[in-house]
Amino acid sequence: MKARIIVTLRTGVLDPQGKAIESALKSFGLNGIGNVRQGKVFDVELEIADRGEAETVLKSACERLLANTVVENYTIELS
Amino acid sequence: MKARIIVTLRTGVLDPQGKAIESALKSFGLNGIGNVRQGKVFDVELEIADRGEAETVLKSACERLLANTVVENYTIELS
Repeated sequence: MKARIIVTLRTGVLDPQGKAIESALKSFGLNGIGNVRQGKVFDVELEIADRGEAETVLKSACERLLANTVVENYTIELS
Repeated sequence: MKARIIVTLRTGVLDPQGKAIESALKSFGLNGIGNVRQGKVFDVELEIADRGEAETVLKSACERLLANTVVENYTIELS
């Protein structure tokens, strides 16, 4: 089973990296680009057959390592 | 208009960060986690109404800044 985890900053949390990307893109003359926010994506291969168990393990992985839940949200997509 | 860009390493490119995450998760006792690969996600707000134009601007943003196309792939999702 495969899973994709996407970790993004919570709304309202300042994203200096996103701001830097925004100004860099504008300096390239790429018009029409407004707000940019950067996050992380994790593609995980699982050796677990049960979807419920997989969800539990991944949730724990996010809460303990992959996401800083004080300032970040995460979503888990199982395929 | 909003877009999500996902940048991931090409298949076959070594991902030391992914390997580090894998071993960290195993050390937490999270069993059943196999291969982990990390990438980047960009949520972009666009001040462009035309989808074709938006796609062109974003493609250029990826090719010039957001992705290292020698070792990375990118996907653009317009919503």
